[in-house]
Amino acid sequence: MSPDPQLEPAEAFRGLRCIVTGGLGFIGSNVAHRLTAAGADVVVIDVLVPTHGGDRANAADGAEVLIADIGAPEVADAIAGTDVVFNVAGQVSHLESMRDPVRDLELNVHSHLRFLETLRREAPEAMVVQTSTRQVYGRPQYLPVDELHPTRPVDVNGVDKLACEQLHRVYADAYDMRTTSLRLTNVYGPRQHLQRDGLGFLPVFVRRALAGERIELFGDGSQLRDCLHVDDVVDAMMLAAAEPASVGEVFNLGHPEALSLAEIASLTVAAAGMGGGVECAPWPDGLERIDIGSFQGDFTKATTTLGWSPRIPFPDGIASTVGWYRARA
Amino acid sequence: MSPDPQLEPAEAFRGLRCIVTGGLGFIGSNVAHRLTAAGADVVVIDVLVPTHGGDRANAADGAEVLIADIGAPEVADAIAGTDVVFNVAGQVSHLESMRDPVRDLELNVHSHLRFLETLRREAPEAMVVQTSTRQVYGRPQYLPVDELHPTRPVDVNGVDKLACEQLHRVYADAYDMRTTSLRLTNVYGPRQHLQRDGLGFLPVFVRRALAGERIELFGDGSQLRDCLHVDDVVDAMMLAAAEPASVGEVFNLGHPEALSLAEIASLTVAAAGMGGGVECAPWPDGLERIDIGSFQGDFTKATTTLGWSPRIPFPDGIASTVGWYRARA
Repeated sequence: MSPDPQLEPAEAFRGLRCIVTGGLGFIGSNVAHRLTAAGADVVVIDVLVPTHGGDRANAADGAEVLIADIGAPEVADAIAGTDVVFNVAGQVSHLESMRDPVRDLELNVHSHLRFLETLRREAPEAMVVQTSTRQVYGRPQYLPVDELHPTRPVDVNGVDKLACEQLHRVYADAYDMRTTSLRLTNVYGPRQHLQRDGLGFLPVFVRRALAGERIELFGDGSQLRDCLHVDDVVDAMMLAAAEPASVGEVFNLGHPEALSLAEIASLTVAAAGMGGGVECAPWPDGLERIDIGSFQGDFTKATTTLGWSPRIPFPDGIASTVGWYRARA
Repeated sequence: MSPDPQLEPAEAFRGLRCIVTGGLGFIGSNVAHRLTAAGADVVVIDVLVPTHGGDRANAADGAEVLIADIGAPEVADAIAGTDVVFNVAGQVSHLESMRDPVRDLELNVHSHLRFLETLRREAPEAMVVQTSTRQVYGRPQYLPVDELHPTRPVDVNGVDKLACEQLHRVYADAYDMRTTSLRLTNVYGPRQHLQRDGLGFLPVFVRRALAGERIELFGDGSQLRDCLHVDDVVDAMMLAAAEPASVGEVFNLGHPEALSLAEIASLTVAAAGMGGGVECAPWPDGLERIDIGSFQGDFTKATTTLGWSPRIPFPDGIASTVGWYRARA
């Protein structure tokens, strides 16, 4: 059964069987929390890779949790007859993908390919929303970046995420599976793992700001980013799952307000109110080569097709995020 | 040491240590034969997958042959200190990539990623020419297709070949390795395995024409292809290896004379002179979905940067090819 596009997302998923891969991680757990709140029947699949963002404490009340690699045969029973799949699992560290490229390929492509084969067998009618990334574009040739921008990733992680996204589209085209992909920009919000590195710059900023430590920026901090609050991302994922026209398509998510890394850091420090400040530092060895400069996504297609646009300005979102972590410290 | 771009290719490789992966297969063995004739010190690495085009009978006289997966650790010794690598190994069957997608990923991405890591450690200065494919473009949005055309492969094999090509470029950008990729169109000529299916339509055409059997075309046979004789491809590979400006770049190869599949079949039948004829048939299940329609590559960039253009018209090339096989029947 599919979510009814005529209903509000909070209603459309009631009683539907939903799989959330990576559902103990940052974005996945936020999806799972929203789905259980909406009355969906939720199964979380997460392998809890120790260096990733997954944490049993993120489990949504009422969700069934299966600790497994999505590519493993034992996920088949859980998947059989599923209505909607939010396929969020993956390794996100650019640097780790260069340190151990084979592992990145295994996690971001191999497991997903096996998962698609399992879906094709066990739930060929399911709607599948896959989270891709702006990384597939590499260094922008123009801003804002729309979906027609060339895909030229700068690191192994980007190559693997693009292959993963394209495999989802190939399964839609070749087998009439109902897959769609959302290309996310930098996401922040509750349930992001703050203590581990390699999960993006935002959790590092929040961690340091809360500790009253100085935030270190590589280069001059002028690179633009259109950060998204995870609640806006979850909105887009639920809209994409309910919209039949999303099948076989990719959509940028983004924010109309692009801020420099220096501004993002300063706003985070201000929200935490612990002092600390911001300083610029030289690029560490190897990192500058896989930096992409400024980025802003053009999300016109998501607005037109899905009716989505982000609702949360960064200053508000980062303030509530910092408050969420402080309340749990 | 690098091939001297001032020398003719037949001279530039004398005494250089060259690796040819997939060197017992069709294109790889033609490269190896040309290199040994040019006085290079050639090591062929081939794992001889039974359903691929590799054959011990294709071994070039004087080449050292190592039967191994290019991703296996035992290739390290052979690779150490290599001057030039022609990385041709791979699975080419579109249909097989849909039947066993995990195997395609292993052969076309996993093994190559491990090979790049071995190269980075053992021969970081080597010039690496990788053979990619027009498949990375998917269905053409315009003809002829230049390198700026979007990459949107239609099957698992195309996704994997694109990832393989992009990994080569990432290793150039991130590690200053000297990789370049050539996107090939349909290639024909000596040493192609005629008895196995899944290696493209051209060997099937040649096999049936030589046997006086009817050639079956799917659909109406009007799809255009710009077939290349393997000697033209080997020319391009040697030019790319000798041209420093090729590093980090991709180049289309193609032919100015695009012919319909029906014309290609008729010319092959005529060259064989055994009767047989050509007939059109309905698309088999699943195949039409991964067909890309007409294709012609714009190879202006290869002409400008490498000084390459194809020399062999199809009617001449197919006549000499048919003669080569007949002499060995």
